[in-house]
Amino acid sequence: MGNKHKVTFFPDRKVVVVDAGTTVLSAALSAQIPLVSICGGEGVCGKCRVIVKSGTVEACGRAKGAARADAPGTVLACQALVMSDLSVEIPPEARLDGSAPAGEDADLRRKGLFERIEEAAAPEARFQERAVALAPVVTKVYLELPAPDLNDRLSDLERVCRGFARKTGVGVDTSSLANIRELGPLLRSCDWKVTVTVLHGTENAQITAIEAGDRSARPYAFVFDIGTTTISGQLVECQQGRVLGTKVTYNRQATFGSDVITRIIYAQAPDGLERLHAAVADALNEMIEAFCREHGVDLNDVSAVSVAGNTTMIHLLLKIDPRHIRQEPYVPVANVIPQVRAADAGIKIGPHGVLLCAPGVSSYVGGDITAGVLACGIHRSQDVSVLIDIGTNGEIVLGNSEWMISCAASAGPAFEGSGMSCGLRAVRGALQACRIDPKTHEVSFQTIGNDKPRGICGSGYIDLVRALLETHLLDKNGRFHQETKSKRLRRGREGWEFVVVWQREAAVDHDITVTEADIDNLKRAKAAIYSGLATLLRHMDMTATDVKRIYLAGGFGTALDIESAVQIGLAPDVERGRFVFMGNTSLAGARLRLLHRELIKETQTLAANMTYFELSADPQYMDEYMAALFFPHTEATRFPSVRYAQSR
Amino acid sequence: MGNKHKVTFFPDRKVVVVDAGTTVLSAALSAQIPLVSICGGEGVCGKCRVIVKSGTVEACGRAKGAARADAPGTVLACQALVMSDLSVEIPPEARLDGSAPAGEDADLRRKGLFERIEEAAAPEARFQERAVALAPVVTKVYLELPAPDLNDRLSDLERVCRGFARKTGVGVDTSSLANIRELGPLLRSCDWKVTVTVLHGTENAQITAIEAGDRSARPYAFVFDIGTTTISGQLVECQQGRVLGTKVTYNRQATFGSDVITRIIYAQAPDGLERLHAAVADALNEMIEAFCREHGVDLNDVSAVSVAGNTTMIHLLLKIDPRHIRQEPYVPVANVIPQVRAADAGIKIGPHGVLLCAPGVSSYVGGDITAGVLACGIHRSQDVSVLIDIGTNGEIVLGNSEWMISCAASAGPAFEGSGMSCGLRAVRGALQACRIDPKTHEVSFQTIGNDKPRGICGSGYIDLVRALLETHLLDKNGRFHQETKSKRLRRGREGWEFVVVWQREAAVDHDITVTEADIDNLKRAKAAIYSGLATLLRHMDMTATDVKRIYLAGGFGTALDIESAVQIGLAPDVERGRFVFMGNTSLAGARLRLLHRELIKETQTLAANMTYFELSADPQYMDEYMAALFFPHTEATRFPSVRYAQSR
Repeated sequence: MGNKHKVTFFPDRKVVVVDAGTTVLSAALSAQIPLVSICGGEGVCGKCRVIVKSGTVEACGRAKGAARADAPGTVLACQALVMSDLSVEIPPEARLDGSAPAGEDADLRRKGLFERIEEAAAPEARFQERAVALAPVVTKVYLELPAPDLNDRLSDLERVCRGFARKTGVGVDTSSLANIRELGPLLRSCDWKVTVTVLHGTENAQITAIEAGDRSARPYAFVFDIGTTTISGQLVECQQGRVLGTKVTYNRQATFGSDVITRIIYAQAPDGLERLHAAVADALNEMIEAFCREHGVDLNDVSAVSVAGNTTMIHLLLKIDPRHIRQEPYVPVANVIPQVRAADAGIKIGPHGVLLCAPGVSSYVGGDITAGVLACGIHRSQDVSVLIDIGTNGEIVLGNSEWMISCAASAGPAFEGSGMSCGLRAVRGALQACRIDPKTHEVSFQTIGNDKPRGICGSGYIDLVRALLETHLLDKNGRFHQETKSKRLRRGREGWEFVVVWQREAAVDHDITVTEADIDNLKRAKAAIYSGLATLLRHMDMTATDVKRIYLAGGFGTALDIESAVQIGLAPDVERGRFVFMGNTSLAGARLRLLHRELIKETQTLAANMTYFELSADPQYMDEYMAALFFPHTEATRFPSVRYAQSR
Repeated sequence: MGNKHKVTFFPDRKVVVVDAGTTVLSAALSAQIPLVSICGGEGVCGKCRVIVKSGTVEACGRAKGAARADAPGTVLACQALVMSDLSVEIPPEARLDGSAPAGEDADLRRKGLFERIEEAAAPEARFQERAVALAPVVTKVYLELPAPDLNDRLSDLERVCRGFARKTGVGVDTSSLANIRELGPLLRSCDWKVTVTVLHGTENAQITAIEAGDRSARPYAFVFDIGTTTISGQLVECQQGRVLGTKVTYNRQATFGSDVITRIIYAQAPDGLERLHAAVADALNEMIEAFCREHGVDLNDVSAVSVAGNTTMIHLLLKIDPRHIRQEPYVPVANVIPQVRAADAGIKIGPHGVLLCAPGVSSYVGGDITAGVLACGIHRSQDVSVLIDIGTNGEIVLGNSEWMISCAASAGPAFEGSGMSCGLRAVRGALQACRIDPKTHEVSFQTIGNDKPRGICGSGYIDLVRALLETHLLDKNGRFHQETKSKRLRRGREGWEFVVVWQREAAVDHDITVTEADIDNLKRAKAAIYSGLATLLRHMDMTATDVKRIYLAGGFGTALDIESAVQIGLAPDVERGRFVFMGNTSLAGARLRLLHRELIKETQTLAANMTYFELSADPQYMDEYMAALFFPHTEATRFPSVRYAQSR
């Protein structure tokens, strides 16, 4: 040990030098190439398979004791130790970003990580934004101050505060020492014309920056929804409350495990917490950098970052040890996070920029859900509503302005396109809607951005399962009818599969298919969510018909066919007019908090009023779940409007 | 240039290596030996005279062009460049701390810098403390929290806040990210028994630190009065509001100039601001360290530092460029300083410790004066009072609860014992009171701590001048009656002088004398103060008899003879019962602000209500001043009770 070896990754041609005995997975991370690793490097999931083209590796972990492997050969990156200089080929399927690098142009490739999507239609969220006056947490105000003279000898700092109070009618606290140190020369260099950045708290306002000249038209901020699998971000111009752009990327923490539990375990390893933190902070910083480059925004003009995420994601972002989240009695270190300097969380915006985190309720109902309730306005209405937010977990909130109860169902990331053979997040080229001709089995489809299809996103899978059920290609257990004569139904490497898009029509070098394993994933995900809602309703002695409004949220893409969601048994079979597809409510809620400062307090209050219901502690939940492992449900009477359910 | 030379200072035996061409003054500073330099290194004052014992120096500045000087020889440290390895002897009179080092024991010597004084009697200040309930800005509260269980799943941080609210009835904001990161393991390591340190603002309370176990009995803080010449400090235990010790030292910035103007000029030099800042920060840190050592206090238990000082001193402490203080229209960068982290100002206390600065009024009436008004309670009484604070400047405040007007008179540091041939600050061994036998001219005296006399402090000089006048050894112009037959009156090296203490009775190796130059210093100082008060009174159309109470403040020592102050024409000749000697009101005010949090706001309000009167802009001030350059005054009728004044 002790000596160093050079590892070259292809096709990227990225080179890193690592200590002998480092795993190839770690080496790839050092080279900024995130690999898929569902098990968190335990050698179990088999996703991080790479090809050693030259050099020597030694097996470790589960594979330990095996002989040294000389190239060429396929190894699991997490179970292979670098023992000499290596050349390693990374196949597309082992990459977390799911696409090969665009030749030598690393910059272009990096851009590719954050594909533009249309913002999901979210009428209720928009209503909420209109119902409250625009009052951003951070404002920039331009002041033309009178120069001091013998009759007006106020100090520089008090002069700035007086100028602000005169212009806005709002008193303001003085600023940080760093700003004061620069203030004297600054004011005199710009003829007493300055722009102050003000952070508005619940009870006070505070100057966080003072700049020369008029920069009041440049108050930018970022909004992020940090999901376990997916990170969505927006660049927001605060003066008029406009969203200038939206991006989405994978959460690169997935390299260390696909769900929060695996990541909490990984956080206990040496440097584990540090790495998980860096993975998310780097992702945010790269997205911020890309936004700034595209929109010509100066980082110094970015004053705030508003974030919503589940409790574990927020712990990891803030580098807080999450271990007690998974140990009885399952308490997080903090649900309500104080406002902190963004820099303290490793987020690179303006030097005095702040980070706002939406408050959580419990270890498994986090700030993404309180932000979602805020965006839907459930806490403001006397009508009983439900929010179903489908991410890597499926969180459900039931209630109204008087009471709210919430739970978390372990749905897995199938509806985010993750862990699926041809899954894709809701980005350009994702198949998001489809129909199957009952006679010819031809598939008509629509993709995001109308690009050639690269894979299938959540709403696409929901449509697809419905169509397969309605055309009887799939039975109610989720097995393909192997006797059906169809060119598209075939036995593939991993069992029976249905070809959704032939390679010639696709933007990838293979047919786009859905396998029985994929269908099984989707069935378990929809069962977890449906049974969670059913359990909450039963606990409150209610039925689905008592619910006036059902808000469906998640990263499905630009549209979700409610009818399909009911048809596959994901959503309850009630009047369709009660459903509202909300898109990403976590992101919308984080944005609302940024743009309407009184909602900061409002979110805290609603979080404090929300009860958490532990599904696993409910004796009947498992029965509900088992009964839901069927399309649409074991009890067909629960889905009277689903025709295929009524047939035998 | 470019090569390095070793400079050894004696008798300290301290060695530094400096670049060739560095001044000996800079080298001494690098060796942490502050030298007297009234002119700020301009080669004018002649105070930094040292003896080069071996090696070569080259003259620079005013002495430039002179030949290289080979040792041995006497040079001004500020005008001599190091050209070879040097041995340099520093005579006691060139040392800022005024005493030779105690042999090799540098630690003992350092202790000697902060001599213990009795706290000046300050009855009004004590009254004020009693009139307001003890409510320190920083408190430590011990909490025994219930461990979480499945029925009580509050997060760790909210559990701490709930515990605090339950125990104190006060809501508290959450804490910094650094504290939150440590919270999970901390709470579990100490069985949920913790001590929280809480900073109480005007409207909210905030947790600044969380520690394991019960440390509630250890809430310490420091209080400082930062004067231009002298720094006074106290260690305060906040739970019961006790002062555990008081120390005083010279402000080592004096090496860069004796008054605020010289220092502001020095701050414009390269590294000037940095050096001035370091000089004061180092002095505070050394005093803090000495206090902690003596009282067994852990720095982590020190949560706050409350400071009062004039506007320039506060700028330099906070490393804010003070240049505009001396440029028309004379505005400081900040009068009201926000609460900042002590660490940001270079003050080393607990990691989350805060620094509170008393707010100033203008460039020349600072936080030391608003703290003084607070301590005297002028702003709370309907009676018109005066505060006369005699430091390096003499600041005067006239007013009551309705109005206040203030001015600053350039008195110089004579009453602080600075710039006087045998002057001493109010420390042990300072002659602080004396009488002269009219027949024998024998001097009876009393020293602080009843030690053998080492020099004379402010109150000693006031007594001395009065006695010299009453015994007709001194005439009303401040000249000695040379014809008087007295062993003690003699012609010395610098003109006529009076021997106050013979060397055999003294703790120094020379007679303790007062020279005509000293008397002249005192005369100009008392004239500046008296005429400042007279001008304020005339401006308000009042006379001294309209003033109900005259508070005299300053670092005179443990006592000031009011009668003597009137007899020499320093204080107006009114009923003696109206005078109150307050000691160091700036220090008392800073302590009051620390221990009674509502006084933080009260000081800001009184500062905002105080008008600043610019003496130099008043056409009659110079006439008043000239008329006061006489003992007790040119107009003897203003001092009817001064007998010698009535004689011709």
